[in-house]
Parts: sequence; C-alpha cells; structure tokens
Amino acid sequence: MLIVKKFGGSSVADAECIRRVANTIVKSYKEGNKVVVVLSAQGDTTDELIEKANEINPNASKREMDMLLATGEQQSVALMAMAIEAMGYPVVSLNAFQCNIYSTSTHSNARIKNISVERIENELDNKNIVIITGFQGINRNLDVTTLGRGGSDTSAVALAAKLGADVCEIYTDVDGVYTCDPRIVKGAVKLNEISYDEMLELATLGAKVLHNRSVELAKKYNVNLVVRSSMSDAEGTVVKEEAKVEKMLVSGVAVDKNVARIALIGLKDEPGTAFKLFSLLSKKKISVDLIIQSIGRSDTKDISFTVTRDDFKETIAILEENKDSLGYSEVKTNTEVAKVSVVGAGMATNSGVAAMLFEATFDAHINVRMISTSEIKISLLVDEKDADRAAEVIHDKFINTGIKARE
Amino acid sequence: MLIVKKFGGSSVADAECIRRVANTIVKSYKEGNKVVVVLSAQGDTTDELIEKANEINPNASKREMDMLLATGEQQSVALMAMAIEAMGYPVVSLNAFQCNIYSTSTHSNARIKNISVERIENELDNKNIVIITGFQGINRNLDVTTLGRGGSDTSAVALAAKLGADVCEIYTDVDGVYTCDPRIVKGAVKLNEISYDEMLELATLGAKVLHNRSVELAKKYNVNLVVRSSMSDAEGTVVKEEAKVEKMLVSGVAVDKNVARIALIGLKDEPGTAFKLFSLLSKKKISVDLIIQSIGRSDTKDISFTVTRDDFKETIAILEENKDSLGYSEVKTNTEVAKVSVVGAGMATNSGVAAMLFEATFDAHINVRMISTSEIKISLLVDEKDADRAAEVIHDKFINTGIKARE
Repeated sequence: MLIVKKFGGSSVADAECIRRVANTIVKSYKEGNKVVVVLSAQGDTTDELIEKANEINPNASKREMDMLLATGEQQSVALMAMAIEAMGYPVVSLNAFQCNIYSTSTHSNARIKNISVERIENELDNKNIVIITGFQGINRNLDVTTLGRGGSDTSAVALAAKLGADVCEIYTDVDGVYTCDPRIVKGAVKLNEISYDEMLELATLGAKVLHNRSVELAKKYNVNLVVRSSMSDAEGTVVKEEAKVEKMLVSGVAVDKNVARIALIGLKDEPGTAFKLFSLLSKKKISVDLIIQSIGRSDTKDISFTVTRDDFKETIAILEENKDSLGYSEVKTNTEVAKVSVVGAGMATNSGVAAMLFEATFDAHINVRMISTSEIKISLLVDEKDADRAAEVIHDKFINTGIKARE
Repeated sequence: MLIVKKFGGSSVADAECIRRVANTIVKSYKEGNKVVVVLSAQGDTTDELIEKANEINPNASKREMDMLLATGEQQSVALMAMAIEAMGYPVVSLNAFQCNIYSTSTHSNARIKNISVERIENELDNKNIVIITGFQGINRNLDVTTLGRGGSDTSAVALAAKLGADVCEIYTDVDGVYTCDPRIVKGAVKLNEISYDEMLELATLGAKVLHNRSVELAKKYNVNLVVRSSMSDAEGTVVKEEAKVEKMLVSGVAVDKNVARIALIGLKDEPGTAFKLFSLLSKKKISVDLIIQSIGRSDTKDISFTVTRDDFKETIAILEENKDSLGYSEVKTNTEVAKVSVVGAGMATNSGVAAMLFEATFDAHINVRMISTSEIKISLLVDEKDADRAAEVIHDKFINTGIKARE
C-alpha cells in the first residue's frame, strides 16, 4: 500500500515525540508499505517565530512571514528524517521546492494548484521513507507561500490525491471524529465512518479535528481519509463518500462560539437592498453565515445575520460608513451568541428532524434566536450561555437515544 | 554602485542588532546604491539546531543536517526584510533555491559552482533591496547543501563576482584586518590595504577575520573586498590585487594553535616513501601543513609534519595501520605546539627577513622547532607556551619598528 501519514505540531513537539512518531512510521514501512509523511512545525515553533517577527515588525508583509514560518516545517522534516536514520531505515526529507508543491500567490492563505511528484516517486522507488513539509508551497515566482489554517492536512490530502495513495491518515491528539466535542457532551461517541459531506459540515461548523479545505479536497479526489490518534493504535474514523453511520439520523453536533449577530432594522423594503449589503461585506472578505430577513413595520424590512467575532468590528465600521446608501434606521448587535449545528446525511430524508430539535430545546427552555437549514444540516443560534447545554440535549435526543432506538 | 554586504551571525543576533544592520543597509540604499545583503544565521541558532539534532541522532546524515541548518539563514533574511519593511523601504528576501545558488554535492562542505542571478537582477531593477541567505546552496538534485566554515563570506564574494558588484563589504565585529590579533599583541595595528595573497596567507594561518576560501574566490574574480565593522563607520581594510601596505616588509603576524606535530623516525631512505605517506593521509582528507625531511642514522631518514589537532588521532591511527608498508621504526608526537607565521608581499624581495626573524626569537629565548617558507610567508613551529610571546617579539621587530623606521 502507498500510505500518506500526517502528524501535527504537538506530535513532533520534542525529541521524545519525534521518536514515537518515527516508530509509527517505521512500523508501517516494515509492513511493506510505501510511506509518505507530512509534518507540521514543532509544537510552539510557529508561535515563537511570529513573536520574533512581531518584535521587529508587527506589520510585516505576508510574503516575508511565509518565508520565515516555512522554516518551522523544514526543521521538523529534517529532525524526523534523523530519527528514522537513527533507527537504521532509509529516509529523505523534502521541502516544497523539492516536491514542486505549486500554489496560488496568496501569501499566508495559498491554495495548492499542482504537485509534480516525480521526485517523491523516485525516492519511494528507491525504498526511501519520504518526509515532506506540510503547510507550505511555492508560487510561480518561486516565492514561499503558506496554506493557512489546517494547511498541513491539506498538503497531506493533496499529496495523497496526486500520488494515488491508498489511504491518507491524519494523526491527531484525539482518536477519531466524535459525535460532539467530548469536553462539551459527556455522551459523545466516536464514529467509525462519516461521509465527506457530513465531515465537511462538521469541520466548517467548528469541529476542529479536520480543516474543511482538506475534507473538500479529499471529497473532490475521492481520497480515503482516516482520522486517528498519534498516541494509540485505535482504529480511528474513516471519512469517505458513503458512510454508514450506524443508521443514525445525525452524525454529529458541533458548537461554534466564534459568532456575533448583527441586525439592521428599518431597511427600505425594495429589491437590491440585501444584495447591496452583502456585496459590500464580501468585497472586504467578510463571510456572512446565518441570514434572516423579516418584514418590519410599515414598508421596511429587517435583516439579521451572523459573522465571526474577528470580523465583527470591521463589519460594524462598514455598516456605519454606508449608512446613507443602505438606508437603515438602527443596528442591533449581540456578541454573546453561539451556533449549535446538527449534521447528518439521514436528515435529508427525514422530515421529523426539525420537530425533534425544537422539542429538545423547548424542553430545556433554550431560546432559539435564528435557524438555518440545508440538506444535511440544521444550525441554531442560541445565547452563548445556553450553547453547551443545547448541544447536550440535542446530542442526547438524536445520538444517544437514536442508537438505543435501533438496537 | 552595486554593493554586496555580508553580516555574520552576531550582527543579526537579536531584534536590536537586526534593526541596527537594517539602518546600515538602508543608509547605503538611500545613497543611490543597489544593495545586495548576505546574512548568516542569527547568533546561536546554528548551535541550537545542532543540539536539537544531536538529541535525536548524534550521527545524523550530513544531508539532513544541511536541510536543518539552512533554516537558520532563511529566518535571518526574512526577519531582516521585515525590519527594512518597517522602515518603509522595498525589500525582498531570497534563499538558495530562489537565487539558484548551485553547489557541489558535498553536504556540509559544498563549493559554489554557479549562480543564475536573473532573479536577483530583476529584484534590483525593481528597486528592491535584496537579502540573501549565506552559507547555503542547492546541488543538482535540488538538495540543500551548506558551504562549511566561512560559508557566508564565500556566498557574498561569489554573488559579488557573478553580479559584477563594485565592492563586497564583509562586516565583522572588528573594524578591519590587523597586523596581528590585538588580544595577543597589544601593538597590533589596523591595515588600510592588504593584497589577496597576503590576506590568503593570513586567513589560512589562523587570522579569523576572513575565511581563506572567500579570499581565494575574491582573488580569482578580482572582487574588491572590504573588511569593516558592523558597529562603527570606520573605514575598514581593503583587500585587493596590489596593496600598498605602508611600505612595510610584513603585513601581519598570525598565530595558529590548532597544530600537532608528528615525526616518523627511521624510514627507509628510498624514493617514494614520502609520496606513500602523504597520499595515504590525503586519501583520508587529512591536510598536512609543515613538512621537514631529514637524514636519519645509517640508511634511514626522518619525516616530521604537522596536522590540525582535530586530525591528530586519525592520523596516528592511519600510521599504525600502515606501519609495515611505510616501514618506520618509531612515531614521536607533540600536541603542545603552535605555528607563528609572518606574512608580507615585501618579503619576497628582501633577503634579510629570515635573519631578523631568528634574531627576534633568539633574543627572546624561544626555541624554533620547524620552519617553512614561501614567497610571501615564513612559518615557525614553536612550543604552544611560547606562541603568543613569539608573535609579540616578531610583530615588534617587523611591524612597529618597521613603521617607525619609515616615518
């Protein structure tokens, strides 16, 4: 088998961690596999480098930040190669230049465009274990880019796709994908399988185990993804096209507290108002999530929407700047809200889900401020203080009882 | 003017140092120059990385060590670019991949083979200050190499040669080349000019201000080299083809304590013995420095030579392994010796130098164990305990009185 394994920063934080991961890698190699490994920078390296940069220039260009940060992964791969050499196995470390990981030019948030895998394939043919820097690419000027949050997951999936790997294993500090964050919901259970779409919704909705870009890419190229623990041999969760989630309606509940709600009151009720509003925000790269439009008094309407708390201040500034052209009478805001989402491929064909959801929150006296639905997801906006409790009662209703009902 | 400036690790050790160097660079840029800067890794970075590697694998391959160590320079150049950005000037950092600094494949001690400077020239034409990683190259497999000791000096000179720079300024923690190490000889004076050949002898002989490979390269491509202080605006020392060293016979005195002496007694006095001996050592990359061959008792001869103390043990092992084929009767060794050398282009045409030298050491009761002469140099092997005193009396004789005599 050709296996791509990805280990994050905490898995390679120090010499001991590196040795443990080296053992995992060599074990797989000794079983006769071709092994490609993608690594992040060690533990706090990236933060330390950012601090160094801030001391010199808090507004450094993204190009130079990328040039600086990319050294973290290069150190990881060299050290890992040394650990494998110490065990007596053939190994080679490669960076983005050597692997031709071409990306777009957007520094600090580049997308992988293409990878020429000749070098990697040659090294594999020569029986080498290949250790590759995650998170980084080069653009067409040969400038160093980084791929943004979850970038190493994306590197691993892209390499797996291009190499035609049998499986892409993402090693994390948890042993798989759970129906909810176990720190929030005690009854959360590990899933054996989940579909790309469900994983994508969960990842987008705040489940931190995989970044949504890596899941998108896995879905696009049909990469067999496995999320598993770097600390144990437990089986992990398989992410694939069609997953049988134990006949559950719902595969997971996610809580996202990085949410702020903004309501524009008294907008003129004429065509194009909403378009004008959201195109203003989109020009500034502000993502709007939940949106509700409702009839206001007389001939006006109200629009409520959510943004991340990081974008909150800038959004308010844009609204104030454009008060005249948007023509609203008042802005109401609430930054103490959270989004609780229920994801499940089974929901598409089951009309009772929304009812069950409202029953659960009503029984728990939780006020639902906004609601948004898609084929495989329902999101509720609730007060932040209620969020964890909401996740718990919804999880109980759908997942724990759901399993029982079918046993 | 097109100027290449090289700063060592202590000059970029922390944020404050980096800002000071950024000021020096920008000052030169504002005077209308095209400025290319070559940097070493920050202060202790390289040592820290080596320590990290040793913790994981004390026998790591040189390939992976180079991959690891090259990150140090990449961090330096990115941080320096950020400091210059903070001052509001256009700047770009480049590594060996981006500058196409092609080298031989000898990891940890590669030689630069070629540099394609298109990218650098484009950046200069776009009015950018260009900051380049010293010490590193890439071989024809695109593997990272490092250039060994003094590598950043070599990078700077090679770039200056290829770019046709008007001057290559090597910034150090001293303000130029001295007639001797001021810590050894109080009367040491700074030279305004020195010839390549003299600098080469001084560098080879232990003067640490410039590495001999960089001087060789400067001589070969006739690069106008200046050694100057990163802490002051003092003029520094110009290294060039024909230097007028204030009409002194001697331009410098160097002390090298990394010396061990080995004597083979009772070798058969037949042709080829010396050749056999030195080719054995050369195969193991052991450099032999001073050599004396003398007639021994009856039909035998003795050969004495010096090696660095680092090579001492290996040399002895080789001699013992080949005792039969070399056919000597005894090995005598002394590791408590040092080499004191006097360098000066003026010596070639002045026959009194050797006499003055022996007069100085004789007056000081210093025993000279070996002697070796070249066109522009005389080296004496003395006991280590006498070395600094020997340097002082020789320096007094040739340089201080030499200057006085001509004033």
